[in-house]
Amino acid sequence: MYLPPHFEETDPSQIYELIDEFPLAVLVAQTEQGIVANHIPLMLQEKQELLGHLALNNDLHQLVSSGQEVLTIFRGEDAYISPNWYPTKPIHHKHVPTWNYQVVHIYGKIYYQNDEKSKLAAVGKLTKKMEERTNGETAWRMADAPSDYLNDLLENIVAFRIEITKILGKSKVSQNREAIDFDNVANVLAEQGSTHMSTRMNRIRENREKE
Amino acid sequence: MYLPPHFEETDPSQIYELIDEFPLAVLVAQTEQGIVANHIPLMLQEKQELLGHLALNNDLHQLVSSGQEVLTIFRGEDAYISPNWYPTKPIHHKHVPTWNYQVVHIYGKIYYQNDEKSKLAAVGKLTKKMEERTNGETAWRMADAPSDYLNDLLENIVAFRIEITKILGKSKVSQNREAIDFDNVANVLAEQGSTHMSTRMNRIRENREKE
Repeated sequence: MYLPPHFEETDPSQIYELIDEFPLAVLVAQTEQGIVANHIPLMLQEKQELLGHLALNNDLHQLVSSGQEVLTIFRGEDAYISPNWYPTKPIHHKHVPTWNYQVVHIYGKIYYQNDEKSKLAAVGKLTKKMEERTNGETAWRMADAPSDYLNDLLENIVAFRIEITKILGKSKVSQNREAIDFDNVANVLAEQGSTHMSTRMNRIRENREKE
Repeated sequence: MYLPPHFEETDPSQIYELIDEFPLAVLVAQTEQGIVANHIPLMLQEKQELLGHLALNNDLHQLVSSGQEVLTIFRGEDAYISPNWYPTKPIHHKHVPTWNYQVVHIYGKIYYQNDEKSKLAAVGKLTKKMEERTNGETAWRMADAPSDYLNDLLENIVAFRIEITKILGKSKVSQNREAIDFDNVANVLAEQGSTHMSTRMNRIRENREKE
């Protein structure tokens, strides 16, 4: 990934929150059939590994061996940024359009887990997290489903963990602009409903003010 | 990509609209340095090629030769789907959580374009499309910026086109569920603000009713 220093995300909280808030990763691997990509929700464990599962019918676990390097991509909100949003535009007109986004690229080695305990952990942890977030006290629990039905489903998945070797974070959110332009972009994005990105930009602004 | 027949998107309008509505693609390539991914807005041209540009400082154009195959990934909204949203849940409880998403994977061969005309076309077409969408009659135009400033910027980019060789569309949007469950998922997603996905699901529902 092209990662100029002014867009490199070095704040661990921004990186870990993005993974937590946007769990549907793109898992990319090089295979004999070329580049293959799948969209799979992943959970970070102890900041050291990613946990996930895939359908047994997904040939990824046949095309990509245990121990092979894969890339996972997490992406937050993105937005087209118009030059019209910069208050300094009428002053010097030295602006062009751009695109804002926040991404985390995690490289690691994938290891499949076929035992029932690992498979239950992979689906159970994800379910618990997402149900608490979505439904709170009325969270659905795996025990709500018939056990025969669950066992059949578990037989049709493969769990995996990805041992993390490298994390790259990129926040391309107008932080290379003048403060007055940065602030207005954050405001317009909030008005447009890109609340995740504007919240993260406000945090960057607060950190900037502390320095 | 794992693409079971019931999730394969075969409706061209769904595929082309997704590319149009979510232009920020992930461009993935295999290189000597492993898998490299960049986030770049792309435009579909005549349904045959994708047009884009990247910073000259982005080493992608050095790592990946003209004519090499790359994968581009377009993704719309995604959402965690709770079993609680299925009206049939209290009847048989045979439901588990899942994730809905729509993606388009386009494979093609990348060709760089360094001449000024191609570079102007790559930025100009994207600007026109996004400004008309964002600002309508007050659209920013490239002529609004000083020409020396624009020329300096153009010298620092490389345009490219990707000759499309394969398009895979996947709509994983509960269409394998009973109609009553599908309909309620679409309603909940609309309430949650996933309006793109719920709109697309309603179109799938309408097509289903015509059959």
